Amino acid sequence: METKLLLSDIYSPVEKHFPLVENKIREILDNANELSSEVIRYFFQAKGKFLRPALCLFGAGFSNHLPPSVITNAAALEIFHSATLIHDDIIDSAYLRRNIPTIHSVWGPQVAVLVGDFLHDKAIEAIFKLKNDRAIASFLKTAGVVCDGEILELSQKSNFALREDEYITIIERKTAVLLGCCLETSAILAGLADAEVAALKNYGIYFGIAFQMIDDCLDYAGLQNEFGKTLGSDLAEGVLTLPLIHLLAHADETTQNEVKQIVQSGVRGGENLAKLVEYLKEFGSLEAAMRKAREYTDRARLELSVLKDHPAKKSLNLLLNYILERNR
Amino acid sequence: METKLLLSDIYSPVEKHFPLVENKIREILDNANELSSEVIRYFFQAKGKFLRPALCLFGAGFSNHLPPSVITNAAALEIFHSATLIHDDIIDSAYLRRNIPTIHSVWGPQVAVLVGDFLHDKAIEAIFKLKNDRAIASFLKTAGVVCDGEILELSQKSNFALREDEYITIIERKTAVLLGCCLETSAILAGLADAEVAALKNYGIYFGIAFQMIDDCLDYAGLQNEFGKTLGSDLAEGVLTLPLIHLLAHADETTQNEVKQIVQSGVRGGENLAKLVEYLKEFGSLEAAMRKAREYTDRARLELSVLKDHPAKKSLNLLLNYILERNR
Repeated sequence: METKLLLSDIYSPVEKHFPLVENKIREILDNANELSSEVIRYFFQAKGKFLRPALCLFGAGFSNHLPPSVITNAAALEIFHSATLIHDDIIDSAYLRRNIPTIHSVWGPQVAVLVGDFLHDKAIEAIFKLKNDRAIASFLKTAGVVCDGEILELSQKSNFALREDEYITIIERKTAVLLGCCLETSAILAGLADAEVAALKNYGIYFGIAFQMIDDCLDYAGLQNEFGKTLGSDLAEGVLTLPLIHLLAHADETTQNEVKQIVQSGVRGGENLAKLVEYLKEFGSLEAAMRKAREYTDRARLELSVLKDHPAKKSLNLLLNYILERNR
Repeated sequence: METKLLLSDIYSPVEKHFPLVENKIREILDNANELSSEVIRYFFQAKGKFLRPALCLFGAGFSNHLPPSVITNAAALEIFHSATLIHDDIIDSAYLRRNIPTIHSVWGPQVAVLVGDFLHDKAIEAIFKLKNDRAIASFLKTAGVVCDGEILELSQKSNFALREDEYITIIERKTAVLLGCCLETSAILAGLADAEVAALKNYGIYFGIAFQMIDDCLDYAGLQNEFGKTLGSDLAEGVLTLPLIHLLAHADETTQNEVKQIVQSGVRGGENLAKLVEYLKEFGSLEAAMRKAREYTDRARLELSVLKDHPAKKSLNLLLNYILERNR
């Protein structure tokens, strides 16, 4: 029997720094008013994967002696990511995030819009205070691209003609560039060589594309409780992801039309979803999407060959295995 | 018969630069995707008062030779302001802005959240590129305070015990600090002396507080078509502003209870509003709010005494008269 990879094992070379990052997050968000503080405490009580801080720490020079700027950067990027999640949950009308009700569903969209804006501003302010122009420029550019990617996704809702390459552009922008930015900015702050900075950034982007593809597969294949998000939510919102794009490209016309009807009916979960999952199985669409994800984990692995041997390198390699295993 | 002040006359010393600012706005927002571009074109076709760019230009050194950074700053601050308006319209569920339907009501809250985020990011990126740390720090701090002010306002919704000083804190944060920031950052970029920078910043804050107080009076007293916003929208959302705070502090208990009931019933416009306007007249609450606004225009005028005589100074003085006249 294969031993299942644990995120905590992969994180072990850097997890001793996590409490520093958590303290820094609290410090950056300290001066919020009463309502904001309540909402912020509520949001951060539910732990996410802490993937972005971990990537920041891995990116930072493959060393146990991290400059304090890397801790601030990790905190700021987690805050920025949280801001996008809070706004995403308005956009997706999601009810659950990390197994607790979303801010949007507890306090309403007004509070969610503003607390998201507040976190966004505080993240930028914290990074600006690091006074590293390359890191700031990378972050600001990334923030714009992430937003652009989300608008692109929205504009392609219910577009049954969406191509795989267009889908990849969307997920690269909305998800992957931020992961690349975590590694890149921290590598810059830690003073790594340009070739190392570039390899880490590229790793992050390829990893991010694979990560999102697998996430999109899990949106169909997972179970609500294990996954912690509402099942089939992309589908209910008319967002086409890789498995569905594959299915529409390979199914006969009758099946295509039925699939389109299921998506257009907008029903969340239940019988429709079961039928769709059946078609995805019949046409091997989830496997095809996973194969494509594996292409990107392979590319990410290749980027790592530039870097010297180090526990962080082993972790970044294992992280690729981990996301591939998530599907099981 | 008194001659009515025109904004175009007040703007005359700087309006020759307006086309440069408009071009710069387009340039900063140039690389948006198709949907964003469409939404952005739609939003900017309806001209606002262009108050923030005008203040930036007035703040910039009282000179006809403006450094290009001031144009970029003016464009960025107008873009930032636009981002807050787009998010505000989600928060207020407003239907009209500048006499055209809001982005929120045409494209839905999802697009409004994301396009607002996009403008926000682009504004910050443009200011960052000016490479002036004092200006960037002022702007980033302001962005956080604006957001904090809006959350504060939201948290005080339907709080009938809201005091005048608490109300002033809210409007200082959500409105006035950004106007102060326009003058301050441009004065910094134009290389003005510290005392001038401080006087201009303070002018902007006092002007902004008066401006918002008068806006809040107009929310009751104006007519929908003249004012270009939905009438009584703050009221319908349960936001207490100065006239109502004055009324509740001065009316007898029976009237207080009736007023609270009107506000809680949440009816927009119509009979309830007419009744409320009657009470506001009876207790002189609009006049009292206007008196308070005048205190702040007086403070703003005093700050201008630090500055040398110049057409821009005359304009900033006239601007105070202009907002006081808006009530007539």
